[in-house]
Amino acid sequence: MTLNIGVLGYRFMGKAHSNALARLPMFFPDAPDIERHTLVGRDEEALADAAERFGFSHTATDWEDAIDEVDVFYNLGPNHVHAEPSIAALEAGVPVLCEKPLAPTLDEAAAMRDAAADADVPAGTAFNYRFVPAIRYAKGLIEDGELGEIRQVRGRYLQDWLVDPEAPWAWRLDGDMAGSGALGDLGAHTLDLADFLVGDEVGGVDRVSGHLQTFVNERPVYDEDGAVEEYRDVTVDDAYTAQVAYDSGAIGSFEATRFAEGHKNDHTIEIHGSKGSLKFSLERLNELEVLREGDRGYQTVLVTDETDPYVDHWWPPGHVIGWEHTFVHENYDFLSAVAEGGAFEPSFEQGYAVQKLLDAVVRADERGEWVSVE
Amino acid sequence: MTLNIGVLGYRFMGKAHSNALARLPMFFPDAPDIERHTLVGRDEEALADAAERFGFSHTATDWEDAIDEVDVFYNLGPNHVHAEPSIAALEAGVPVLCEKPLAPTLDEAAAMRDAAADADVPAGTAFNYRFVPAIRYAKGLIEDGELGEIRQVRGRYLQDWLVDPEAPWAWRLDGDMAGSGALGDLGAHTLDLADFLVGDEVGGVDRVSGHLQTFVNERPVYDEDGAVEEYRDVTVDDAYTAQVAYDSGAIGSFEATRFAEGHKNDHTIEIHGSKGSLKFSLERLNELEVLREGDRGYQTVLVTDETDPYVDHWWPPGHVIGWEHTFVHENYDFLSAVAEGGAFEPSFEQGYAVQKLLDAVVRADERGEWVSVE
Amino acid sequence: MTLNIGVLGYRFMGKAHSNALARLPMFFPDAPDIERHTLVGRDEEALADAAERFGFSHTATDWEDAIDEVDVFYNLGPNHVHAEPSIAALEAGVPVLCEKPLAPTLDEAAAMRDAAADADVPAGTAFNYRFVPAIRYAKGLIEDGELGEIRQVRGRYLQDWLVDPEAPWAWRLDGDMAGSGALGDLGAHTLDLADFLVGDEVGGVDRVSGHLQTFVNERPVYDEDGAVEEYRDVTVDDAYTAQVAYDSGAIGSFEATRFAEGHKNDHTIEIHGSKGSLKFSLERLNELEVLREGDRGYQTVLVTDETDPYVDHWWPPGHVIGWEHTFVHENYDFLSAVAEGGAFEPSFEQGYAVQKLLDAVVRADERGEWVSVE
Amino acid sequence: MTLNIGVLGYRFMGKAHSNALARLPMFFPDAPDIERHTLVGRDEEALADAAERFGFSHTATDWEDAIDEVDVFYNLGPNHVHAEPSIAALEAGVPVLCEKPLAPTLDEAAAMRDAAADADVPAGTAFNYRFVPAIRYAKGLIEDGELGEIRQVRGRYLQDWLVDPEAPWAWRLDGDMAGSGALGDLGAHTLDLADFLVGDEVGGVDRVSGHLQTFVNERPVYDEDGAVEEYRDVTVDDAYTAQVAYDSGAIGSFEATRFAEGHKNDHTIEIHGSKGSLKFSLERLNELEVLREGDRGYQTVLVTDETDPYVDHWWPPGHVIGWEHTFVHENYDFLSAVAEGGAFEPSFEQGYAVQKLLDAVVRADERGEWVSVE
Repeated sequence: MTLNIGVLGYRFMGKAHSNALARLPMFFPDAPDIERHTLVGRDEEALADAAERFGFSHTATDWEDAIDEVDVFYNLGPNHVHAEPSIAALEAGVPVLCEKPLAPTLDEAAAMRDAAADADVPAGTAFNYRFVPAIRYAKGLIEDGELGEIRQVRGRYLQDWLVDPEAPWAWRLDGDMAGSGALGDLGAHTLDLADFLVGDEVGGVDRVSGHLQTFVNERPVYDEDGAVEEYRDVTVDDAYTAQVAYDSGAIGSFEATRFAEGHKNDHTIEIHGSKGSLKFSLERLNELEVLREGDRGYQTVLVTDETDPYVDHWWPPGHVIGWEHTFVHENYDFLSAVAEGGAFEPSFEQGYAVQKLLDAVVRADERGEWVSVE
Repeated sequence: MTLNIGVLGYRFMGKAHSNALARLPMFFPDAPDIERHTLVGRDEEALADAAERFGFSHTATDWEDAIDEVDVFYNLGPNHVHAEPSIAALEAGVPVLCEKPLAPTLDEAAAMRDAAADADVPAGTAFNYRFVPAIRYAKGLIEDGELGEIRQVRGRYLQDWLVDPEAPWAWRLDGDMAGSGALGDLGAHTLDLADFLVGDEVGGVDRVSGHLQTFVNERPVYDEDGAVEEYRDVTVDDAYTAQVAYDSGAIGSFEATRFAEGHKNDHTIEIHGSKGSLKFSLERLNELEVLREGDRGYQTVLVTDETDPYVDHWWPPGHVIGWEHTFVHENYDFLSAVAEGGAFEPSFEQGYAVQKLLDAVVRADERGEWVSVE
Repeated sequence: MTLNIGVLGYRFMGKAHSNALARLPMFFPDAPDIERHTLVGRDEEALADAAERFGFSHTATDWEDAIDEVDVFYNLGPNHVHAEPSIAALEAGVPVLCEKPLAPTLDEAAAMRDAAADADVPAGTAFNYRFVPAIRYAKGLIEDGELGEIRQVRGRYLQDWLVDPEAPWAWRLDGDMAGSGALGDLGAHTLDLADFLVGDEVGGVDRVSGHLQTFVNERPVYDEDGAVEEYRDVTVDDAYTAQVAYDSGAIGSFEATRFAEGHKNDHTIEIHGSKGSLKFSLERLNELEVLREGDRGYQTVLVTDETDPYVDHWWPPGHVIGWEHTFVHENYDFLSAVAEGGAFEPSFEQGYAVQKLLDAVVRADERGEWVSVE
Repeated sequence: MTLNIGVLGYRFMGKAHSNALARLPMFFPDAPDIERHTLVGRDEEALADAAERFGFSHTATDWEDAIDEVDVFYNLGPNHVHAEPSIAALEAGVPVLCEKPLAPTLDEAAAMRDAAADADVPAGTAFNYRFVPAIRYAKGLIEDGELGEIRQVRGRYLQDWLVDPEAPWAWRLDGDMAGSGALGDLGAHTLDLADFLVGDEVGGVDRVSGHLQTFVNERPVYDEDGAVEEYRDVTVDDAYTAQVAYDSGAIGSFEATRFAEGHKNDHTIEIHGSKGSLKFSLERLNELEVLREGDRGYQTVLVTDETDPYVDHWWPPGHVIGWEHTFVHENYDFLSAVAEGGAFEPSFEQGYAVQKLLDAVVRADERGEWVSVE
């Protein structure tokens, strides 16, 4: 049986997932057979170009039509179009993989979670950094107790693409479409990753303090000739910080920004336990720094051995993989769950849990006080 | 003229400052002549040993006597003995260099600040990390506008000496004597350093959110044979985090812990501006990572050139200095101010300003809300 | 027009090139259309499996048959089967891309070079590390004179897969089949890379001194149950070092080993010129450390900007690529040259030039003296 | 009893050793009592200034006079004045600590070694890098077999102070006075360090290949106003490389340069054994990178624990020391040997052994062939 895949969105994430789908047969031969079936978008010309390039046999400008035709639906559009098509697909019994964050608002995210709960097909939230081999390896170390009792988590995600005040306005800078800024775009990844790695050990987030800041309040919209047409308001945060108290008494500190000169995609997570510590940085994603009981310093581990998660599918030790490989792993796991009727993590439930944290950080910032999370 | 120096405290800090005093003549020949005159402490035997080793000609078990005899008074005792002797010295017209944090409570720190304001001799707070050449070099870059408008500050101070729950109780773990734990001991350094580096640019702290946590609530007191005599309560924080909003709209995040396995003395400060960024780490204190306009990545600068602050007094380029050298620079500047009747920074006023931040972080933690700083 | 590709070899390199061919359409849409046509090997069953997985429509156990059927021939077999099929293909007017080193002996490499000179189709040597974006970026800096006059080159390639004396015997350890060991397998890459980067500036190698050493002289051959069948002699070097004098007066030092515990694929090249320096390491292949005139330290540059070589075909800044991407770039350039009738570098001529260096290092080692290169 | 110390030379090394002597009482209270007695030099005015600054009670312009007056003689002058005064001191029964390399020529070094053999007082060669705690810690690991059988040693020493062709001529650039250039000044350190660390394991050097190169053949002598008075020939190497074959079959590669832009004092040594590896870099001298059996990557060890060599004399863990501390350790060990009638390593015998290597590298370069050592 071949799974026909429908994909809404053909820009950055569309390319990343299409590539992942294309690479499965050669490297994950036991993955389900799939066809890149229908690519969904609004601009017919651009859509046709993308479909050819990304290897889709059909296009559709109406996502409802697409859902009727496919076995699996990928929602890779902007945040404000996540809820409706995803819910419709789930109601039609079509498994959904949706990009993160789940939705611009907690209400929409809740509706999506509920739709997933009612459906008996997988509904996945595409937190791709869970699928970095070094992160999976870290997860295994923590589960095995190598770090002891977890006491502190530190996450940050630094980018620099908005440092220039003349950088163009985009949908990601609009509160209605994006929900939030650095918080939802970058912080969602960090909060999910922290939960993935230590959630079982620290028992969930008890309460948070939040701080959101916008450094540049309006940005130009450029016409085709590069002239400024107008200035539009930036209605999301350029940077956020958050403090977290976990149920276990562990503490966390989180931060993201799009204004950190010199940091392109610097997503870092650091964890300290009673027996050891670890550090991960996305710009060196093949590496994990690990300190275990008895060690005098961090070991810089190149997580490219055959025994490392997913690595046996790729290349010999020391032949590093890239950012895009996380999508291949994610698609492999998701499609395997679809084909085998299994569960997929991170689910919409998890996407909603992250959304609750994002929402709590925003409320904490607005109120100037710590906010309980459930 | 020779300045007779009186020093209260002969343990870690006593050794650090005594060494600094001893090294001045060879490396800073234009420093005032000094004599290590009186060492003050309670245990006469240990005191006599220390005095001989540290090169003091006299000892005293009563600090009041010492103050009468000396030209300059160093208060290097535990935090709870900072206020009274320092104030007495200042009232007697004796310049004071006091270890940080200024006092266990804000009230005591205020009294010290007031005493300093009333005296016309220098009253310094010994934030020695201001005297790292790489930090001074960073300060110069920021003052020269090389980083542009400052937007984000990130500071953390990680140690690991309390990870073991059987590590012994000490005065630093008692709220009455120490004031606070990681916050006052380590965080005070970070908050001072942030203010030193970017205070002029970001206009002071507007408000803070705080989080203090104690992971191990009691600790053993050991007798001489290593047997546990009793368990005493730990009444300070083992770790803290803080969020900071500056007047200018810049934001900060701060953190310290004594529970970070694998980090011995890892004091890090990172700053992002509209034109550049920099990173400093105390465990590699001869280096500064700098990214300036036009750079594509951080330059790892070895701050050991003749033209670098204080470095011409020491060794040729590439011949690195150590932690203790910061005390030599600090003593040189302080004693020069004493001799020349000049000002010394960081002053008690600055020590008090840091104390206000520490106090605000504690109150913010207690109240669960952001607290305004003045 | 579609180019039918024939590939001899279906193991490590077969997989790497097949993947590259498969990825061209999505990421390099202006690449020539190709078909993965015929896969050549001896073991029919394994071959059929590989052909299906790698997307080849045909298989052949006789390379002569394959050459008749295809437009382009990839020779990815062991070194001792490089010469005959490659020469036959070129004589038939079929372009050839051959893995490195060109041949086990200088004579065979010379014959291949001559065949390439007589053919008017591209004959490429697959030194894939030339196609790392950071290396291309480095090449541009050197060509632009950013490093000034080149004075020193330092290259090393460290692996650890033979540290265990019970690691199994393999064809790479046989002098007749492989030519040499660490020298030909790893050193060939380094010597080519050095020539690519600074060859124009330093005017070629004048003479070399060589040192080859074998640490473990025989190794087990295991049967299917993991029992040792026999021990076979290791007749190649486990490690080599070389000193190089360039025509310009520049000097080089080179080294490779398969016995460096903790180094999986650590290929490093460092260059010092009169104005600057640079450092590259394959395990962090997205980065280049660059020091230019006026810099105080190396900049750690993440070579993932749109303006960086090849990068605009992939992902946004900071989204790192992997080892395999070098093959995509190489295949793109090679196939473009085939389709457009252009030249491809590195050619067989260049492969021969590297072979001369390998040969000179071996002779220098045997003679215990410096050996002139031409 | 107090040892009166006489020191020839009051520039860089004079300052380094004077400082070391001054620091002993406070940090190494069990060191012999010493007096900085006589400082020897030719320029009376500069000498008097230095004596005051360095704390010497007497000066002498004739080293023979000084030797008569002192209990210990430090020869810190240029290389060409090492032999005669050192030999005279030893013949007078005065212990000698002489800076490295032992002499400009092998003959002189042999005479010094012979004089030391005939004397029954310590004669030390001041290879101070043996006294870095991280190096001592490394030595312990190797002796304990943690690295297994040693197979490869790699040393390099990179500086940049001659990159500028207008940098002034100095005695270090004259073959008669200095013996050699980068080889003798920097390479001597590396070769000694390699021998210290692995000499016992690899059984000494069997033979070497050498390469010396001068990039800038003459340099200006400036007058007091900064005008060029004349150009003098550079008659030493600006850079060298060497290949080494050890008795055990282990191999080495060594290199030094004064032309490496961006490297101030970058002395690196790397060792690979059958069970582990280690890396050390002088610019981060508090750290050692260690990989032991079972480790997946190098541990970055901060060698500042109380249990680390010499460290208990200084500061708590994480409070890093500097370059100058190596001299304190060296002086402590040397003076203890003098006082206790014990042996000191590295001795003149060891200094001579290094000199033989330097000489062999030079001859190998001249002859263009490997040269046996012994």
